[in-house]
Amino acid sequence: MPQQLSLAEVEDLSFRRLVAAGASDLAAQSVARSIRAAERDGIRSHGLMYLPIYMEHLRCGKVLGAAVPLVTQPRRAAVVVDAANGFAHPAIDAGWQALTLAAQSEGVATMTISRSYNCGVLGHHAERLAEAGLIGLCMTHAPASIAPIGGSVPVIGTNPFSLAVPDGQGGVALSIDQSASVVAKSEVMMRARRGEALPEGWALDAQGQPTTSAEDALKGSMMPSGGYKGFGIGLMVEVLASAMAGANSSRTASPFSGPAGGPPGTGQCFIAFDPVAYADGFSERIAELIAAVLAQDGTRLPGSRRRAARAMTADQGVSVDDALMAKLIA
Amino acid sequence: MPQQLSLAEVEDLSFRRLVAAGASDLAAQSVARSIRAAERDGIRSHGLMYLPIYMEHLRCGKVLGAAVPLVTQPRRAAVVVDAANGFAHPAIDAGWQALTLAAQSEGVATMTISRSYNCGVLGHHAERLAEAGLIGLCMTHAPASIAPIGGSVPVIGTNPFSLAVPDGQGGVALSIDQSASVVAKSEVMMRARRGEALPEGWALDAQGQPTTSAEDALKGSMMPSGGYKGFGIGLMVEVLASAMAGANSSRTASPFSGPAGGPPGTGQCFIAFDPVAYADGFSERIAELIAAVLAQDGTRLPGSRRRAARAMTADQGVSVDDALMAKLIA
Repeated sequence: MPQQLSLAEVEDLSFRRLVAAGASDLAAQSVARSIRAAERDGIRSHGLMYLPIYMEHLRCGKVLGAAVPLVTQPRRAAVVVDAANGFAHPAIDAGWQALTLAAQSEGVATMTISRSYNCGVLGHHAERLAEAGLIGLCMTHAPASIAPIGGSVPVIGTNPFSLAVPDGQGGVALSIDQSASVVAKSEVMMRARRGEALPEGWALDAQGQPTTSAEDALKGSMMPSGGYKGFGIGLMVEVLASAMAGANSSRTASPFSGPAGGPPGTGQCFIAFDPVAYADGFSERIAELIAAVLAQDGTRLPGSRRRAARAMTADQGVSVDDALMAKLIA
Repeated sequence: MPQQLSLAEVEDLSFRRLVAAGASDLAAQSVARSIRAAERDGIRSHGLMYLPIYMEHLRCGKVLGAAVPLVTQPRRAAVVVDAANGFAHPAIDAGWQALTLAAQSEGVATMTISRSYNCGVLGHHAERLAEAGLIGLCMTHAPASIAPIGGSVPVIGTNPFSLAVPDGQGGVALSIDQSASVVAKSEVMMRARRGEALPEGWALDAQGQPTTSAEDALKGSMMPSGGYKGFGIGLMVEVLASAMAGANSSRTASPFSGPAGGPPGTGQCFIAFDPVAYADGFSERIAELIAAVLAQDGTRLPGSRRRAARAMTADQGVSVDDALMAKLIA
């Protein structure tokens, strides 16, 4: 019999389980907030479903629960965070104020994070920047799963970017969050678990040939969205979130799933722009752009599904089935 | 009988024709250099083939040949250029030193340009940043030609971005330059002139339905690369290069071709990062990433065709057919 949890209960349960698994209070708070936000937006893969993985990674030493992030600011607009092989979220929180203050003061600022980990729903970090009145352009890389066009060996991860735009009133006008691959790797993993075939165009096998076998795809590579252009997007993210951040490469990072390989040591790059610095009338131009999209029948804005889920979960909470609940309280 | 011109002759001819059509010496120098660079890289659409359009636009007032760009620096890392409805290239040149010095000093800097124009080969601006040791992330928008997914009315241009990465020795290690659409709009225009059909998947007609008619496509819209993800990329560029820059929107900008509509008033956004500010070992990580791509048979790096052309044109110059030469000296 599925249980219904409020979002506050999701956060509280997550916090307690993370602390029990060895996370510091500060780290557990950051990560529990991110689980709540994922459940709020209906992104269940990064919500409570991920909690058992976080707990496993705390226990096997893939993430260090007591890590203390180190923040430096080598230039006025450059914030550098060493996550010290702990969770990404507390490292991001540690540098947050320096990033936002620098962006407001200098017009743009960049924060890189190294020795980091999966940062959850990337778009939520960009939206947090937008809520501070800044344009957030956030990138995170991931263990390699996309091969170069014509090749078969993955060299970059699904390497998403997200962009969130402030509405001028403390809210988010527009939010984009997309990976460089046709679909998220979690979609392939889910089908592999269920023994289902993949649609064509999602993945290649280990020889670089198209496959509809989820098993073969996991030994092969994910297809980039739009062919070489998707690979180009993934490269951009690799350059900024891995190479510039001084993180492990996607090729050498340990997997985000399973206990093997020690800390992944991946990285993030968050860029924050203060639109007020560049020209007047930014919010009006964004509002007109959005209106031009929505004036057309059958269109929707990026992120509209998340916003719809948000309206529902705030009211009704989320449903947690027995199997997941058993894992969470095990 | 086609004529063979050296790259120096291409630049000289371009300079003289631009001045004759009304460009200031400074503007003509900037634009002539960009035409030379396009011909050098084999990008003929932005080389001498574009020169008659520049000349037409000078004569009809779509671009003001005597415009004086105005550079301000409202924040330490924010450079703002008003191109004053002149060419984009001299406006970019005007802000260049402020942008590169700010990036080196603050770790990152952004330059926006408004009341601007087509900036030619976007990747060349990013490569110029890379030659200064900076990571260049450049965006430019264009008159609307991509409709939102599910819609039929274009709201954003083919809105390209480019990324160029320094090699640590004054050169460019990696250069990406790609539009948000499946193909460049110039490909459709060329096929319309020749009366050729389009491959499927390139464009939609005015009702938002797939079409292989180049004529119908020009009345309709360009398909974004990878569906909604390509549209997301185009939106990112629209937010930064148009809305943040304070430029006309892609929806309201006049066309980049033909004499109608007055100055397009479009914008650019160039972001420059100093990788040295964030971590040691950047160049080594980039070299390893490139090696991992090229170690695989059948792969190539983005921009490899341009580099191949470069090697050839430096030696052999470029061929100009009678029809084009007649237009140029008309």
